[in-house]
Amino acid sequence: MKTEGRNAVIELLKTGKNIDKILLEKGAQGSISLIFAEARKKNVRVQFVDRQVLDKESETRRHQGVIAFTTDYEYFDLDEIIAKKKSEKGGFIVLCDGIEDVHNLGSIIRVAECAGADGVVIAKSGCASVTESVIRISAGAAEHMKVAKVPNLNQAVEKLQKEGYWVYALEAGGEDIYKENFAGNVALIVGGEDSGVKRLTKEKCDKVLSIPLQGQVNSLNASVALGIAAYEVVRNRLQL
Amino acid sequence: MKTEGRNAVIELLKTGKNIDKILLEKGAQGSISLIFAEARKKNVRVQFVDRQVLDKESETRRHQGVIAFTTDYEYFDLDEIIAKKKSEKGGFIVLCDGIEDVHNLGSIIRVAECAGADGVVIAKSGCASVTESVIRISAGAAEHMKVAKVPNLNQAVEKLQKEGYWVYALEAGGEDIYKENFAGNVALIVGGEDSGVKRLTKEKCDKVLSIPLQGQVNSLNASVALGIAAYEVVRNRLQL
Repeated sequence: MKTEGRNAVIELLKTGKNIDKILLEKGAQGSISLIFAEARKKNVRVQFVDRQVLDKESETRRHQGVIAFTTDYEYFDLDEIIAKKKSEKGGFIVLCDGIEDVHNLGSIIRVAECAGADGVVIAKSGCASVTESVIRISAGAAEHMKVAKVPNLNQAVEKLQKEGYWVYALEAGGEDIYKENFAGNVALIVGGEDSGVKRLTKEKCDKVLSIPLQGQVNSLNASVALGIAAYEVVRNRLQL
Repeated sequence: MKTEGRNAVIELLKTGKNIDKILLEKGAQGSISLIFAEARKKNVRVQFVDRQVLDKESETRRHQGVIAFTTDYEYFDLDEIIAKKKSEKGGFIVLCDGIEDVHNLGSIIRVAECAGADGVVIAKSGCASVTESVIRISAGAAEHMKVAKVPNLNQAVEKLQKEGYWVYALEAGGEDIYKENFAGNVALIVGGEDSGVKRLTKEKCDKVLSIPLQGQVNSLNASVALGIAAYEVVRNRLQL
């Protein structure tokens, strides 16, 4: 598997994951030397190559002079995510319902990581996987975040509820998010750009929460909506 | 809108119309260098690309190595934005510092619209313009949002301060955003993905505000950060 782009490779190097080798562009400037130093420190094989070699290897066409080769992204079990809570104030899990766009998934993982979530859950079908593009778009956050791939999102919701999570769908027409108290274990479901959270999934949820829109455009982008909601959880917990 | 061909673009440059960018063919001869010089003089963004790119963009098939992109988008004056406040609780303006990426600018305009901002301010240079792509990415929000293009962002900050705005830069290392009270007129400055808010601009601001990051990745995407901050203003005002 390939990780492309400077920030993504810098984050990858921090994780301690197995990196087979890193290709660096000959004569490239800036943070390339930092990557080289870090790679040497960790005994990772580095090869300096011409830009054309990188262009040929690149799948995203945005390698910025660096591509790292690792083994495939390793998904986690939902159980592991539930078992390892980062905060003593409660679990915090993000579920993706029909996030097909790699940009959205990458952004969602980045937001979840910044907000201190324990993990991100994606469905086996109808959702993008953690590809190189997703890792790059996540600015490397995917390397620090536990991502679980489940066969069925509704079953994951039921499981979380059994484990004592409050499961919220983020959607228009729900209750005001600013009136909610996020004490305890929290799971937020974010839906795809067009489809939103599916009806059946929404019905399984404990509550539908909405961000009060002040303008004329009818929705926020999925990762921005998640950012606002996830940080409402953060804000709540900082004050607890 | 596209203007193709050398003479057409030379004439376009004389009109003072808003040009988003000009594509020039790599290695082309003759009046291309004249166009390049004129464009630079007027702070118009120029990209040198391969002939195939121009061929693909061309609608007339007679581009002669040059295509200029303009929009019919009509910018507002900062004064108009200041004069027409949407909320009786105070003005709310978003300023963009070095947002070069059209995706980021489109997302920022969408977020600003959803959060009920009065307008968005962009700088003439170092910032993307409101192109067709930006309007599309904003999910149409750009049509509802007043966008002002100013020659100098620092002067805009000074003007806003004179008009009684509290001007905040969104950046790492500042004060906790959750401790701030957003009563009165508020302006938020959001910086580019890599560069952030420029030092001089930051020094002009009344305060630097930070979103408390809970993970290991060192920053949120610009539009997500703005979403979280802008909705902190919304939340504050809903409770006033």
